[in-house]
Amino acid sequence: MPKVMVAGVGMTRFGRWLDRTLGDLAHEAVSIALLDAGVESRQLQAAVVSNAAGHLTTGMAAARGQMILEDSGLLGLPVYNVENGCAGGSTAFNVAWMSVAAGRYDVVLALGVEKVYHPDKKAMIQAFSSGAHPEDTARLSQLQRQNEGHPRTIFMDYYAELGRQHMASHGTRKEHFARIAVKNHHNGARNPHAQFQHPGTLAEVLASPLLVEPLHVQMCAPFGDGAAAVILCSEEYARRLVVRRPVWVAATEHVSGGNRVLGEHQESVRAAQLAYHAAGLGPEEIDVAEVHDATTIAELLAYEQLGFCAHGEGGCLVEEGATAIGGRLPVNTSGGLSAKGHPIGATGLAMVAELTWQLRGEAGVRQVEQARVALSHNAGGLIHGDNATAFVTILQV
Amino acid sequence: MPKVMVAGVGMTRFGRWLDRTLGDLAHEAVSIALLDAGVESRQLQAAVVSNAAGHLTTGMAAARGQMILEDSGLLGLPVYNVENGCAGGSTAFNVAWMSVAAGRYDVVLALGVEKVYHPDKKAMIQAFSSGAHPEDTARLSQLQRQNEGHPRTIFMDYYAELGRQHMASHGTRKEHFARIAVKNHHNGARNPHAQFQHPGTLAEVLASPLLVEPLHVQMCAPFGDGAAAVILCSEEYARRLVVRRPVWVAATEHVSGGNRVLGEHQESVRAAQLAYHAAGLGPEEIDVAEVHDATTIAELLAYEQLGFCAHGEGGCLVEEGATAIGGRLPVNTSGGLSAKGHPIGATGLAMVAELTWQLRGEAGVRQVEQARVALSHNAGGLIHGDNATAFVTILQV
Repeated sequence: MPKVMVAGVGMTRFGRWLDRTLGDLAHEAVSIALLDAGVESRQLQAAVVSNAAGHLTTGMAAARGQMILEDSGLLGLPVYNVENGCAGGSTAFNVAWMSVAAGRYDVVLALGVEKVYHPDKKAMIQAFSSGAHPEDTARLSQLQRQNEGHPRTIFMDYYAELGRQHMASHGTRKEHFARIAVKNHHNGARNPHAQFQHPGTLAEVLASPLLVEPLHVQMCAPFGDGAAAVILCSEEYARRLVVRRPVWVAATEHVSGGNRVLGEHQESVRAAQLAYHAAGLGPEEIDVAEVHDATTIAELLAYEQLGFCAHGEGGCLVEEGATAIGGRLPVNTSGGLSAKGHPIGATGLAMVAELTWQLRGEAGVRQVEQARVALSHNAGGLIHGDNATAFVTILQV
Repeated sequence: MPKVMVAGVGMTRFGRWLDRTLGDLAHEAVSIALLDAGVESRQLQAAVVSNAAGHLTTGMAAARGQMILEDSGLLGLPVYNVENGCAGGSTAFNVAWMSVAAGRYDVVLALGVEKVYHPDKKAMIQAFSSGAHPEDTARLSQLQRQNEGHPRTIFMDYYAELGRQHMASHGTRKEHFARIAVKNHHNGARNPHAQFQHPGTLAEVLASPLLVEPLHVQMCAPFGDGAAAVILCSEEYARRLVVRRPVWVAATEHVSGGNRVLGEHQESVRAAQLAYHAAGLGPEEIDVAEVHDATTIAELLAYEQLGFCAHGEGGCLVEEGATAIGGRLPVNTSGGLSAKGHPIGATGLAMVAELTWQLRGEAGVRQVEQARVALSHNAGGLIHGDNATAFVTILQV
């Protein structure tokens, strides 16, 4: 398959941007990505735009990408509008990659942008919960009523249940999930793009409000707004650019859940297997990863799903400190969803931004030494107890 | 670029399906397309799903395609959810085509499915109008208030204005638009998939309620529901299938409007130029076409934009009867949006279904003799007075 390069990346700081528009946030991320790539906006040939909640938060319905790109001076660019719940950003990356790999375009923008934060927390929770199958929504809503606590989306009840199961089956303790939160907030404090930039202690995480056992607020992704942009180009186009350390797309694979033939909670496992196969390498060769820690429970599960450790041994990996910067496989050096933030459609592309900086050696105080192979894992939606989609992307220098 | 084949097509009858779900409509279209292709559902490798209004009419927000495909027994298939206003179907076709052309998948489903019809006409009009840029919405709403009449979406005011301009500049008469409606309803009456299957006379079209000059109800696409599905496959995969008369994708191009560098209303013109270039042929070689007659005014304008006649001469083409079945370039043999119906996200794929039947010689009483090259034109959204996107696809046997 033709080689596709990540030519440039850019993102806004994630946060609560009530006074900014989707177009304004996008413009900032796109401008930085273009500058980073050394590509002028008029050279772009197409855009793939991921936005999940625009119809809920801004009333924009159809052809949102075209309208959002106006602020970036990109009126007239052919646009694909894509969506896949919390994995919309990876979907945009994948479609942009395909458009270059197919020889259709030479240089393409993948953009994820989202405004989620709203002072009306109830409405925001309602909007966020719409990413689940009606059957899952019904079951999780009932579970939520049984476990009253801090207001939360049904996704939190989903992950909390998986956490309780893991604790019961494998002796994992709440402290394991809390230690991941400490790690991610430690990393977020070193990332100028993160929504939360305060490191915290284990005691602080465990003292933060309890959503539902074993989940405390600081173990969960916050509501937030932001944009992330990635410029992809063909190998031939890359020759026109000044590229110090080219980052290549080694694999981008996705698998949908809900199909019991595959087995329960196997969508991320299978997506990782496909990605390793496509890239011709295994989990032991991954130097740095960004995984979908909508909660830190999901991060611990991802360690196992992605083959970073054996099934049931996610807790051991935490105890070893293996996934901290300086460990043998640093995960969520950006702070992850739990500290960097999670503006739904932007998340998958923000992962690519962080990994690109890591592979180029541009991650500053978060730098993982000698990073040559990087993996992102981005999940979205719920269907019959699984994620509706799981993406695994591998980048390589 | 690798050759991609249209292996199978299927669709529901378009209409008012208040008692059917998105999943049920999709299942019918998908089953027919799979049977048509001779492909089993377990052989499909991915799906691209176009749905524009699910969040408004069914409350489904994220990862809709995964949920819609459950009724088709396709849980677990990797899904791309795409949207592009009324051109979502062509977007799904284009992404499915890219995924095969890139060598990523061998056999892929493109599905468009929509539930639009609702007894609360006001809500339906409101939902439909959300495909326009806020600036266009404001201007057209004002225009609508100035020209009171039958309740309608702002898109009707948009097309009516273009119609009035064409009449003033080129001597086109309301009867030209009405004659196109007569032609399309004549064709629709011969199409078992059409929402409207009553042929009508010129007098009947002109006696139907006036929306806004010069548009009468029978010149406009109705609100409706339905699904259309297309199976695409690689040339290599096609060898496994029994294919009597293979239909190949010769071009699929899109251009976004609103950019004044391109010029006003040039998005369809430019998309057609790109498609002719990619296919290596010109408008004189098109044997049959499906164009985006959201109103029959748009069909007349499309004749000129696609190069079927010179600028300003759309009316002459109507007078010649050139675009009727039996004419030199039959257009909207299916009945078009105005008679077949327009379930937003399904429309672009229903165009491909009709053209595939035409190219295979399977269009029955609507058959265009010796059709070897076919073109579809599908537009979506409004931005600064242009369509936010215009797709032109060319198929060839």
